[in-house]
Amino acid sequence: MGRMPTQFDPPSGTRDFLAAEFERRESAFAVIRSVFASYGFEPLQTPAFERLDVLLGKYGDEGDKLVFKILRRGEHEASGEADLALRYDLTVPLARVAAAYGSQLPSPYKRYAIGPVWRADRPGKDRYREFVQCDLDTLGSTSVLADAEALCAQHDALAGLGIGEFRIQLNSRRVLAGLLDVFGIADELGPGVLITLDKLDKLSPGAVGAELEGRGLAPGKAAELVGTMTAPDAVDRIRVALKPSEEGSAGLDEVDRVLSLVAPQVPAGRIAFTPRMVRGLSYYTGPIWEVTAPGVLASIGSGGRYDHLIEQLGGPDTPATGSSLGIERILALLPGRADLPQGRLDVAVTVMDPAYAEQSFECAAAARSAGLRAGVYLGSSGKLGRQLKWASDQGARWSLIYGRAEAEAGTVTVRDMVSGDQAAVRAADLGDYLARRTAG
Amino acid sequence: MGRMPTQFDPPSGTRDFLAAEFERRESAFAVIRSVFASYGFEPLQTPAFERLDVLLGKYGDEGDKLVFKILRRGEHEASGEADLALRYDLTVPLARVAAAYGSQLPSPYKRYAIGPVWRADRPGKDRYREFVQCDLDTLGSTSVLADAEALCAQHDALAGLGIGEFRIQLNSRRVLAGLLDVFGIADELGPGVLITLDKLDKLSPGAVGAELEGRGLAPGKAAELVGTMTAPDAVDRIRVALKPSEEGSAGLDEVDRVLSLVAPQVPAGRIAFTPRMVRGLSYYTGPIWEVTAPGVLASIGSGGRYDHLIEQLGGPDTPATGSSLGIERILALLPGRADLPQGRLDVAVTVMDPAYAEQSFECAAAARSAGLRAGVYLGSSGKLGRQLKWASDQGARWSLIYGRAEAEAGTVTVRDMVSGDQAAVRAADLGDYLARRTAG
Repeated sequence: MGRMPTQFDPPSGTRDFLAAEFERRESAFAVIRSVFASYGFEPLQTPAFERLDVLLGKYGDEGDKLVFKILRRGEHEASGEADLALRYDLTVPLARVAAAYGSQLPSPYKRYAIGPVWRADRPGKDRYREFVQCDLDTLGSTSVLADAEALCAQHDALAGLGIGEFRIQLNSRRVLAGLLDVFGIADELGPGVLITLDKLDKLSPGAVGAELEGRGLAPGKAAELVGTMTAPDAVDRIRVALKPSEEGSAGLDEVDRVLSLVAPQVPAGRIAFTPRMVRGLSYYTGPIWEVTAPGVLASIGSGGRYDHLIEQLGGPDTPATGSSLGIERILALLPGRADLPQGRLDVAVTVMDPAYAEQSFECAAAARSAGLRAGVYLGSSGKLGRQLKWASDQGARWSLIYGRAEAEAGTVTVRDMVSGDQAAVRAADLGDYLARRTAG
Repeated sequence: MGRMPTQFDPPSGTRDFLAAEFERRESAFAVIRSVFASYGFEPLQTPAFERLDVLLGKYGDEGDKLVFKILRRGEHEASGEADLALRYDLTVPLARVAAAYGSQLPSPYKRYAIGPVWRADRPGKDRYREFVQCDLDTLGSTSVLADAEALCAQHDALAGLGIGEFRIQLNSRRVLAGLLDVFGIADELGPGVLITLDKLDKLSPGAVGAELEGRGLAPGKAAELVGTMTAPDAVDRIRVALKPSEEGSAGLDEVDRVLSLVAPQVPAGRIAFTPRMVRGLSYYTGPIWEVTAPGVLASIGSGGRYDHLIEQLGGPDTPATGSSLGIERILALLPGRADLPQGRLDVAVTVMDPAYAEQSFECAAAARSAGLRAGVYLGSSGKLGRQLKWASDQGARWSLIYGRAEAEAGTVTVRDMVSGDQAAVRAADLGDYLARRTAG
């Protein structure tokens, strides 16, 4: 809290995860992995870096600038050239793996990947240079069932993480293509028009209309389009408007099919057909969705079908669909923890007399055999008060004392760190005693 | 198996981990984490890269050459200079963290780290450029109990992994210093003499004697030293020989203390005082150990006290001890798996009629709610045989069939993939039925 930056900080945009934060993150990843596995998705882990030619040219000029490049080594280092680069996302490595392993992979290939990626972005609040992505994709199926499954698995992961309030906006690129079609918008204006329509949740209808005119739409057409999209009954009007368009009708069918398939899993209030939701990325070809949560500006998840991207990224020509969780944003939503919730130890073993350190080690071993976390005092103080303070700092439930008196009696003193009560327990019974008392 | 290398392979010296291998590795890491936590060690995760100045000069000239350096970005990229580098080990980041967080860390700070490191070594059999290290260290305790604890935790991890046969060689740098002392070996020859003695398990006594003479030892002294170290009763002779040396006696006490402290955990036959075991690294200051397994040339684990290293690496002046598992070698010892041991799915849901796909989704959801992994058929075949082949490929225990007949009867057909038996189960009872049958 409020620590000044020093030369010992991790590099700009990266983080050290000490125990409490590490455990908090790992618990979330474990929930996600378990949900994804329950759908039959299997894990994939690829190297931190790829050959530079595998990465470059895949993310556009802006993306290429954000790639961390690795200098050649040995005699080539002086050239100042790079031959490797840290992965920028988990999709290009997936395309490479699909190309490399081909028929050795199951078909369809349903995989998830949770791991760090690196981008030389300007660091800022909740924007890191090393951050975790959490992707789930199905390669090799054209079925809308695969889209619905990717959406359901993402939904269940968010629900499993305890994200109470979130909403899924569902649309289809084919609905959007149908809209451009029925409004008679020229092909070359289409992509720009969609990018502008995507701003309807941030800008006023007037501002969006003006931007559409700037893109070359006739004023009347711009107003009509914006009016349709922002009408209170926009969804119904668009359903009617799309009827004459083959592509638009197919898109509507796709949307309705996804809605009906996910109904057993996704509460009706949590998902809605949202015709003006565009998703910036142009590679989507079918259903698309975006997950939002109150109080979070950016989406906390997204997904969709992208039937040509794997090939464009250097992989085989395969249909694909998938979803991605904005896991760093989601982690920021989950409750923080100042310290390890369970403490570090269940059983703290004091060492009051170095002559009996062996017995302290034995006590710790007995506690561990009983399934408890146990450690011995490693400091230099021979004072009981000081050692009990240490036991308390570890969050220990029990502390053990073994010295001359205990040696003569053949017992171990077990101190309840909550009540302060002490009991003399026969050394041979120690493990059982601790297990029973801890469970009870 | 015998796949030809292609342009789609991961970069030289790195690996893709597909599902079975990923799960195999993760299970091993989970065992290790659990053992380490049972000793009260807590996790630490640091970024993949550090500032270049944090890393360089810490590993000697040879080490520096193996560091993967990251090119500066933006306008500075053309300079060909690096400002960051991939971490080379987990110890330099630990030193930085100790410096950065100081008194915010518990004292002593017992931490473990399991994560990839990167070295631009020439790739070879079992030698990778991206590989996992698995370290456990205690900072801030001078107590021999901390050394013994680090050794015990490492031992328990190996035992927990199911490594049946392994042996721990124990020594102390102070025993070695005492030996140099009682044999009257000049200070400046000491380090070289130890490096040569370390070869006694690979070279003949004659060859080691000759190398010692080459280092400047008188022939008689070299022969006497080698004779003492290789005698059948070497340990006893060295115990006697060390008596007059204060340092040597202290080292012996240290070794005996560790042996006696670990006795409750480590079977006596598994650990032995091994005076000629040196450990190449010069930074050790107290007890040192090395773990070997039959059939593995290099050690599978090691550890020791290194009281000045953290300061030399840029951290605070703190005593330290720790152990490191050669986890990639250990993973190579553990049985391999060609496929996921549990398959991908417990329940494979066929989709015989697209009109009933919603019900197939519902069946899958019911199975998942019952704690089973379930997925629906995503292919395009409408043939039952083809879909059952898919179910079998997933390793599914059950397959479900839902079509017009089932819709009319209000049931789901559950097929036992082992026996081929089929049962008609009421849709509402499906989850309970599958859970009961799977558990039974």
